[in-house]
Amino acid sequence: MIKIGIVGGTGYTGVELLRLLAQHAQAEVVAITSRGDAGTAVADMYPSLRGRVGLRFEDPAKANLAACDVVFFATPNGIAMQQAPALLDAGVRVIDLAADFRIKDVGEWEKWYGMSHACPEWIEKAVYGLPEFNRERIRSARLIANPGCYPTAVQLGFMPLVKAGVVDLSSLIADAKSGVSGAGRKAETHILFSEASDNFKAYGVPGHRHLPEIRQGLSLLSGGPVGLTFVPHLTPMIRGIHATLYGRITSEADFQTLFEQAYAGEAFVDVLPARSHPETRSVRSANTCRIAVHRPQGGNMLVVLSVIDNLVKGAAGQAVQNMNLMFGLDETTGLCQLPLMP
Amino acid sequence: MIKIGIVGGTGYTGVELLRLLAQHAQAEVVAITSRGDAGTAVADMYPSLRGRVGLRFEDPAKANLAACDVVFFATPNGIAMQQAPALLDAGVRVIDLAADFRIKDVGEWEKWYGMSHACPEWIEKAVYGLPEFNRERIRSARLIANPGCYPTAVQLGFMPLVKAGVVDLSSLIADAKSGVSGAGRKAETHILFSEASDNFKAYGVPGHRHLPEIRQGLSLLSGGPVGLTFVPHLTPMIRGIHATLYGRITSEADFQTLFEQAYAGEAFVDVLPARSHPETRSVRSANTCRIAVHRPQGGNMLVVLSVIDNLVKGAAGQAVQNMNLMFGLDETTGLCQLPLMP
Amino acid sequence: MIKIGIVGGTGYTGVELLRLLAQHAQAEVVAITSRGDAGTAVADMYPSLRGRVGLRFEDPAKANLAACDVVFFATPNGIAMQQAPALLDAGVRVIDLAADFRIKDVGEWEKWYGMSHACPEWIEKAVYGLPEFNRERIRSARLIANPGCYPTAVQLGFMPLVKAGVVDLSSLIADAKSGVSGAGRKAETHILFSEASDNFKAYGVPGHRHLPEIRQGLSLLSGGPVGLTFVPHLTPMIRGIHATLYGRITSEADFQTLFEQAYAGEAFVDVLPARSHPETRSVRSANTCRIAVHRPQGGNMLVVLSVIDNLVKGAAGQAVQNMNLMFGLDETTGLCQLPLMP
Amino acid sequence: MIKIGIVGGTGYTGVELLRLLAQHAQAEVVAITSRGDAGTAVADMYPSLRGRVGLRFEDPAKANLAACDVVFFATPNGIAMQQAPALLDAGVRVIDLAADFRIKDVGEWEKWYGMSHACPEWIEKAVYGLPEFNRERIRSARLIANPGCYPTAVQLGFMPLVKAGVVDLSSLIADAKSGVSGAGRKAETHILFSEASDNFKAYGVPGHRHLPEIRQGLSLLSGGPVGLTFVPHLTPMIRGIHATLYGRITSEADFQTLFEQAYAGEAFVDVLPARSHPETRSVRSANTCRIAVHRPQGGNMLVVLSVIDNLVKGAAGQAVQNMNLMFGLDETTGLCQLPLMP
Repeated sequence: MIKIGIVGGTGYTGVELLRLLAQHAQAEVVAITSRGDAGTAVADMYPSLRGRVGLRFEDPAKANLAACDVVFFATPNGIAMQQAPALLDAGVRVIDLAADFRIKDVGEWEKWYGMSHACPEWIEKAVYGLPEFNRERIRSARLIANPGCYPTAVQLGFMPLVKAGVVDLSSLIADAKSGVSGAGRKAETHILFSEASDNFKAYGVPGHRHLPEIRQGLSLLSGGPVGLTFVPHLTPMIRGIHATLYGRITSEADFQTLFEQAYAGEAFVDVLPARSHPETRSVRSANTCRIAVHRPQGGNMLVVLSVIDNLVKGAAGQAVQNMNLMFGLDETTGLCQLPLMP
Repeated sequence: MIKIGIVGGTGYTGVELLRLLAQHAQAEVVAITSRGDAGTAVADMYPSLRGRVGLRFEDPAKANLAACDVVFFATPNGIAMQQAPALLDAGVRVIDLAADFRIKDVGEWEKWYGMSHACPEWIEKAVYGLPEFNRERIRSARLIANPGCYPTAVQLGFMPLVKAGVVDLSSLIADAKSGVSGAGRKAETHILFSEASDNFKAYGVPGHRHLPEIRQGLSLLSGGPVGLTFVPHLTPMIRGIHATLYGRITSEADFQTLFEQAYAGEAFVDVLPARSHPETRSVRSANTCRIAVHRPQGGNMLVVLSVIDNLVKGAAGQAVQNMNLMFGLDETTGLCQLPLMP
Repeated sequence: MIKIGIVGGTGYTGVELLRLLAQHAQAEVVAITSRGDAGTAVADMYPSLRGRVGLRFEDPAKANLAACDVVFFATPNGIAMQQAPALLDAGVRVIDLAADFRIKDVGEWEKWYGMSHACPEWIEKAVYGLPEFNRERIRSARLIANPGCYPTAVQLGFMPLVKAGVVDLSSLIADAKSGVSGAGRKAETHILFSEASDNFKAYGVPGHRHLPEIRQGLSLLSGGPVGLTFVPHLTPMIRGIHATLYGRITSEADFQTLFEQAYAGEAFVDVLPARSHPETRSVRSANTCRIAVHRPQGGNMLVVLSVIDNLVKGAAGQAVQNMNLMFGLDETTGLCQLPLMP
Repeated sequence: MIKIGIVGGTGYTGVELLRLLAQHAQAEVVAITSRGDAGTAVADMYPSLRGRVGLRFEDPAKANLAACDVVFFATPNGIAMQQAPALLDAGVRVIDLAADFRIKDVGEWEKWYGMSHACPEWIEKAVYGLPEFNRERIRSARLIANPGCYPTAVQLGFMPLVKAGVVDLSSLIADAKSGVSGAGRKAETHILFSEASDNFKAYGVPGHRHLPEIRQGLSLLSGGPVGLTFVPHLTPMIRGIHATLYGRITSEADFQTLFEQAYAGEAFVDVLPARSHPETRSVRSANTCRIAVHRPQGGNMLVVLSVIDNLVKGAAGQAVQNMNLMFGLDETTGLCQLPLMP
């Protein structure tokens, strides 16, 4: 049994970790912390867990996280970089679901996240937790930077093209749409039901923090700079990301086969038949990314459609997948629930 | 391994049975039929099942259902009564998720359902599949009449009161609200997104088919006639039923304790603490019914709130629960998934 | 031109007042205040008003509200009672969309609203602004207590029955469902999109502030005490209230005719034909209340269905209707927009 | 008073025409037809119109449309081309909200719409009814081809760039998202609430009928061929289109000013300040198109955001705008309702 701690368990990635880990045969959550809700039974805040999760939120200062095998940080940006080093020094492995260790260039990180980094020495040691890119390095990692939700959908969609070098890397476009749970559980006006329902909008067009993360990943794959326009949108659904990706073809290839081969052995990436349109609900509650590739009218623009559940493959599910790899388990352990449809 | 056949698998109860049974360790679906979609791979119609369900829909006339241990009818009303007898005679056990065998009074059934009953001789032998009422009879049943969605939520909510005889049985009120999936997957105008979204309405106030089913169940419990006003409403969500139940108090009791004791041993009925308000999402995708009981301002009206997922405890999950009982399995086998939140 | 001031214009009732008044031929909003957003152009906060509303939010301390003919308070409870008296003394007429002047019994008000009343002397002079009850008194009122949203839907639905004395007044039930905009535009977790969407729940069952308001209104009509159970629910839509009302019949009557006659001359109450089910969207954005009356299976329980748009007939529209009466205009001026469908 | 006929009034564009025309001071709908619902009162089908629209649907064969000044076709594709010529010959002016007269190249039209054109001789005489492109020709037109919803949002967003010749016309991208009402009111499975809610998908990526319409419009503006990738998506809201447009910059310009000047005199196109993100709800129920222009990180990709209400500026509202022009009225007559928010 892997002993697990969760720091900051009151948000959506926290409760999603609890849902997944409560159904994981090799895992046991032994501590979950919350500064504001210490003492509250988890199942009082989340009645969906009644009868299944008996934990109470603990004060972060008092929880014995150092006794865990692995600690997940489901906290806002800027927390893990302060608390992870002590745990890592104590031999605990850490998976950060926030952005603290995602960007290798410290200056770039500080620019986009608007704070000084508290432990830049750990950034280099951290492994970017996208198993389909980095599986071997994840197995031995001590610290995982779990990818962002948009970066997961976008990178998985672009990866085969970038590796094969068949599209113009200077003008990639990612037009991405997210369900509202991607904005978290903070009480903010713009994500109220009466504001976000029956409405659609882009946001962050001048610049979104997931842009440098995606650009870094694709640049690593291509071995050179990548020009990317990234436009996120808020769509009135709870879960799901749909990334519509555009690349100008520079070399001919059988693109359908290229994708099928790229993901042939992957348990969590499903390449659909030609002419398909994946729906976000086809992955709702599951750790799967479904991808379709199109070349409209045989022209020179390739269109890739990539869908994930932002809270699963885009956050908590991917974190569990990383944990499985780190602890030598089958990668799919605890992640076999079927999507909820309808 | 229980060999399972599903008749009429293209609707929501059919795909929900597939979702649950694909995750059931003791069950194997060996045949699924559809008149209109014979030959189509199930996963082509429901991509959420890709990689997990390899079956194709078969022509009902050709499927070897007689070789199954149990056959689920996920068909419109009026089909099971025609096809079930031959299977039953062949020794196959049958669980009908439609209404064909729910009402014991044939004349009453024919009035509400507008057709002649094809095999009234099986009505009496059929066992009403609400385990919390009927567990022992279900274990040995050959034919299960799986309860309707509203009747499940309403009867579980009223049951402790009716058994205890503490409310006026001549003037019960069930004000029930259902998600749109309760109306099925037929293409009908009034359940289009643009019609049902951002909208709320009652329907069937002059009379709804679930009224006689609920009345029959409560009358059996009370041993006498029951007066019930039942008003269903359509609410803009996919899954979930919320029943708000009203009963005029005729005898004093500790109502909270009454409910807690009534359901003390039940795996799938959760009585919430006093002053709670169960939310439908707290049972989304799960086989659980959560109930709260209120006595506003200490007056003479009792208010019971009862929530289920109409496709799980209200249909496919309860059917699997019945199957587990019929085949001597632990009642919760395959039904332990946690609710999806948010 | 009526010169209008709006205090607290940043919430939903404020912006709805602006939408209606901008299309009102006899009205001109000359000042709108907001403590937190003073200086901001209204159309910057609400781009739907771009090009049509040129005002800026003003500091309440600086706005020249005393120069207005009428001031609307679209503020939280407890503000109008502090600021209205000075305006009233200056000869300005006041319409309070909050609850400060709705309850005649000061002690009762203080109990339900949890504060001391700042100007009890004005409570008695205030006129409850439900024109279908109180039209003549509204015409000459200086201070209007604009009804709550639930109380409007519920009282209009019960009124003909209570006046005629044909149902048991000791056991009325109002099972009401509201869209989320009824909870206002405050950033609170439980009304986030990810919490309130695809979900349904009751709330406030032990006691809701609209209960004493409804009870007071019905008691005035009946001339005696009224026993009412009121259960509000949150439903995943933006606008709309659907009240399902239950009354035990004590005297026979032609109930359809009773309702039609009761509202025969009313511009904003529409009694539907027998066997109808009004939908909330049939009044979306309009000042109309639509009502249907049912007697299921000819039994002894009457069921009334009453729908309004909570922000229009349940708030801003009714306030404008009251203003029209107070200033001698046709009651429908500025309120003739057709409902938005779909 | 303009005498108006509507052919095919039971769909969403039909009922939206009724909503707008009922509030139009110079218009009177004298006939509305429906093959399937002849004899039914319009307000029985659409209770939102009760008390305001007294018409009944008439059999198309019997309605005296030739006595109208103008007839709107709110019919499926392929109807207007059969019935309009006789009306036009009788001197009636015609506005077709379907696609029959939108594409000048008959062969192209027949390829995309899968039928032979019944009156190709009228295609050339038809005027494409996008007033911001074609105002003068509309004034004198006898037959208007009212633009599609996507083409309206996309062409208004690209127009200033194409006219100015400042982006690469060989690789334009329009990533567009539509509310579900854009799919009409036909009973089809994929637009059921339970299918389209809490879900997001692309569709028609291999080719959508609005592609040739947009390409034709932009080619006319540019005077040469235009390469366009058009990807439509279905988003879970009722009304609204959000087009996210991408163009690679080929000439430097002050893009904000370019847009502001292009639409300086337009009543229904609103260019937002720099760095804005228009929301679909900011135009809900209104005939307005709001546009923002972005150049992320000062790079070489221009991003234009364009929102409309698909049933108003994308259909019925624009049709009324065209009618106003054709009959010498102020272009905004009957189109001044403020957007509904929230």
